[in-house]
Amino acid sequence: MLGRFITFEGGEGCGKSTQASLLSAYLQNKCIKTVLTKEPGGTPEGQILRQLLVTGDKDKFDAISECLLYCADRRNHLNKVVWPEMKKGKWVISDRYADSTEAYQYYGYEKRVDFATLQGLYKIVAGDFKPDLTFILDIEPEKGMRRSFAKAQTMEVKELRFESRQIEFHHNLRQGFLEIAKRDPERCVVINADAAIEEIHRRIVETVTEKFGI
Amino acid sequence: MLGRFITFEGGEGCGKSTQASLLSAYLQNKCIKTVLTKEPGGTPEGQILRQLLVTGDKDKFDAISECLLYCADRRNHLNKVVWPEMKKGKWVISDRYADSTEAYQYYGYEKRVDFATLQGLYKIVAGDFKPDLTFILDIEPEKGMRRSFAKAQTMEVKELRFESRQIEFHHNLRQGFLEIAKRDPERCVVINADAAIEEIHRRIVETVTEKFGI
Repeated sequence: MLGRFITFEGGEGCGKSTQASLLSAYLQNKCIKTVLTKEPGGTPEGQILRQLLVTGDKDKFDAISECLLYCADRRNHLNKVVWPEMKKGKWVISDRYADSTEAYQYYGYEKRVDFATLQGLYKIVAGDFKPDLTFILDIEPEKGMRRSFAKAQTMEVKELRFESRQIEFHHNLRQGFLEIAKRDPERCVVINADAAIEEIHRRIVETVTEKFGI
Repeated sequence: MLGRFITFEGGEGCGKSTQASLLSAYLQNKCIKTVLTKEPGGTPEGQILRQLLVTGDKDKFDAISECLLYCADRRNHLNKVVWPEMKKGKWVISDRYADSTEAYQYYGYEKRVDFATLQGLYKIVAGDFKPDLTFILDIEPEKGMRRSFAKAQTMEVKELRFESRQIEFHHNLRQGFLEIAKRDPERCVVINADAAIEEIHRRIVETVTEKFGI
């Protein structure tokens, strides 16, 4: 594929969406065509799945049902957005991708879905396809949660399914993302997200410039 | 588990829903508590998935996305309806279950999802759990389709995703269901569905009576 696939990952309130937008704008300024997208909900059908997944009773789905829905959303997203846009040479930047499923389902919820199942599902969804680069925005859960709740107060639709989990969940999640980064250092770059927005953006641009030689 | 799980399978217009209702009523008359349910859409969340799956553009999902959504619906259905009701000793009667996924995705669409993937997904969804008894209502596709279109004209929501496929699809589907029955003769009973409703019901009752000794 001609384009690139860059994903942003991390716990609640780590600033993923902001940084994804800033990177997209930066690349466009460099005359690189980008597509800014997200999971879940990067397609019209995915928006319906996102509604199902992130609003309402946080226990309405068991772990396996939830994983299958995230996987359906992912497959549809790859098929309708990521792969066709990459084929056109665009750089696709996604706010969350598969590392989130692993971090939440396996690490956050303490292995409620076993690792082999998660890996088997990923293979069904994406085969050997992987992001070219993944930023893991790392922040202390207490700080992230404060940001996330502050942001939710200004949003119309409250998506607080995960924020309503105990703080221990968020510590597990953070460790999970760090584990993933350690396991795949070629692809993942951990960024300290407890810094000024501009400073984080600067580090992200540095990494992208170095990795892809733009 | 204390209860039983009986599924009805077959192509469009084969009379599954009618026969599932009739069996449920018959068993209740025999003082057996039943739950009449269906896939997709046997839960409130499943209804949303059903809407996504069976209405609108018939190609809006690729094969894998579609399978994953059916699997998510199935897992949720097992978890919220089938398993808990069976634990209470009820007989759960479902209008479609996993054989439909196999018949449509593998046979109907001519192996667009490979068999190992379908089996792997079933294992993730249900482990070793299987229906106690499955009725495969067999009818010539041309006759079934005529019934199905006639019924749709009286329905408010038009669920004609599969009816709009070519007739060849429906012939493949029929062969698929017959293959499944041949492979699992302990569980599956093929019923000629080109007969009077009462006659089909009589054969179903006969089979249930013999199998479970009621």
